[in-house]
This record gives sequence, C-alpha cells and structure tokens, in this order.
Amino acid sequence: MPQDPIELARANWIRYGWPESADGMALVTSIMRVQQVFLARIESVLRPHGLTFARYEVLRLLGFSRRGSMPVGKIGERLQVHPASVTNAVQRLEADGLVERSANPNDGRSVIAAITPEGRRLVDECTDLLNAEVFSIVPIPTTQQQRTFHSLKGVRKAFGDFT
Amino acid sequence: MPQDPIELARANWIRYGWPESADGMALVTSIMRVQQVFLARIESVLRPHGLTFARYEVLRLLGFSRRGSMPVGKIGERLQVHPASVTNAVQRLEADGLVERSANPNDGRSVIAAITPEGRRLVDECTDLLNAEVFSIVPIPTTQQQRTFHSLKGVRKAFGDFT
Repeated sequence: MPQDPIELARANWIRYGWPESADGMALVTSIMRVQQVFLARIESVLRPHGLTFARYEVLRLLGFSRRGSMPVGKIGERLQVHPASVTNAVQRLEADGLVERSANPNDGRSVIAAITPEGRRLVDECTDLLNAEVFSIVPIPTTQQQRTFHSLKGVRKAFGDFT
Repeated sequence: MPQDPIELARANWIRYGWPESADGMALVTSIMRVQQVFLARIESVLRPHGLTFARYEVLRLLGFSRRGSMPVGKIGERLQVHPASVTNAVQRLEADGLVERSANPNDGRSVIAAITPEGRRLVDECTDLLNAEVFSIVPIPTTQQQRTFHSLKGVRKAFGDFT
C-alpha cells in the first residue's frame, strides 16, 4: 500500500461525521494489526520448537516461579487467560514431557503444574530466540516503546486487569 | 490481580539478565492483551447483528467506497488480510444478503463485491454501536490515544504495511 490504510479509514470516519470516534477507531484498529504481525513473528520463532505462544507463556511463568511449579488456576490468573485454555496448554505441555501435573496436596480439586528439566531447557532457548528476533528489535525508539506501554497500561487498568 | 502481571514479567526479564528485551517484551505482551479485550468487546457488540469484526470491516470498506463495490483482491489489500479470509468473509456476507458478487467485466479472474441496501443499513447501525460502545470510549485521554497511534504507526511502517 502506498498510503496507510488506517489513516484512510480515520479520514473516512471524520468525513462521515464521527470525529469523536476517529482516534479510538484508529488506535483500536492499529492494535489489531500490530498484534497480528507480532503474533505471526512469535509463532514462527516458536513453531520449529513445537511451542505456541500460549504454551511458551505457561512454561516461561513456571520457569520464573520459585519452586518451578504453580497451581494451574494461578497460572490462568497471572496470564489472564481462560481456565480451559490453561488446562489445554498444560495437557499439551505434559504430553511433550515439558511439565508434570500432580494433585495439589493442600486442595484436592486443584492441579499443580511443574516444569521438567527438558521444559526449562526449551523455555530458556526459546526466550533467547524471542528476545533476539522479536523483543529486542521492536522497530521504534525505546522511549516510544515505554510511553506506548504506559498508555496501554492505562487501558488495561481501566479494563480491570489489575488494581 | 492486585499487581500488574505484565510489570511482574518485565521485572523478571530484568532480573534474569535480559534488560535490553524487557521494554519490547512488555510492549508486545500489552498489545496482545489489549487486542484481546478490544476484540472481545467488538465481537460482543456485533454478534447480535450476525457479524464478526472481519465481516464488519469488509462491509464498512464497501460502504465507504464511491460505487459501493470493490474487487475482492483490493478489499484484502486495504484490510491487510489474507485473500482466503476475504473470500470467506464475502461468501458469508453474500449468504446473508449483505453483499452481491459478480465477475469483474475488466478481468475475468477477479470478483467484484457490492454492498446491498440491507448491508448498508446494517453497517451503519453497527458503526453507530461500535462508536458508542468501543471507539468513542477508549479509556485513556485523546492525546495519549493519538501518541500511541503514531508510535504503532511507526511499527506498522517498519513492518512494510505502507510506504
């Protein structure tokens, strides 16, 4: 495209009489597009290692935890994903020998997921790759990255993501 | 969550020795989260009207076009989506009586999609709803919305979205 298609949409929003919604439309549409491209890049880094971003995030969180293990419900809270999605990710990771599941001794209804040595090796390797190929080369200056993060943090706070 | 889970991840990134990737990780993860919540809100506004966001975007673009019609390939370029996805969206919209397809008289291999009066009525109604319930109430100040849009525009430009 020679012209930015989202700027074209923004101009149409104003032309058709919705100026008070034009900035919000342009921002939301940009977020959709940038998310799509980043997710595609992340998944293309992880795919050869048999991981999706959802499964990588579970492994990364377990790798950071003090004991290398957490209740599955708490993983869902921290990653802000639906319990069914975490359960599915943990089952897939277990099938691949990257986590082990056990009953929570303090709560029979809850399941604990623990990262295995193989899971730890894989998540550290994939973190190095994601850092090198995605996170350290976000193509805008660091100060803009930080400002954008803080603006989006305001959105997340308003959504009730944290208090 | 009492604490922001993405700030917690960011702190871990620094603690584990990846400070040069911490800002990028925090920004990319925020974009994933904010995209997810906005998309859920948009889809919940559109669902009662039988539309997805992908199909809404096709209808909106046709509604803006001078003749109310465009080649399907051009719709894909403007919306930056895969040709197969546009074809699928257009087929669903045609099945619902919201667009009509015809062969392009200037190019036998190309298909033209035209919005119907019913499609126009629906897309205008849904635009009013999305403006009221999503785009005009993005919960950060307008100046921050504009700055964030411009930073993300830098990312999109670097990705090659426009020249």
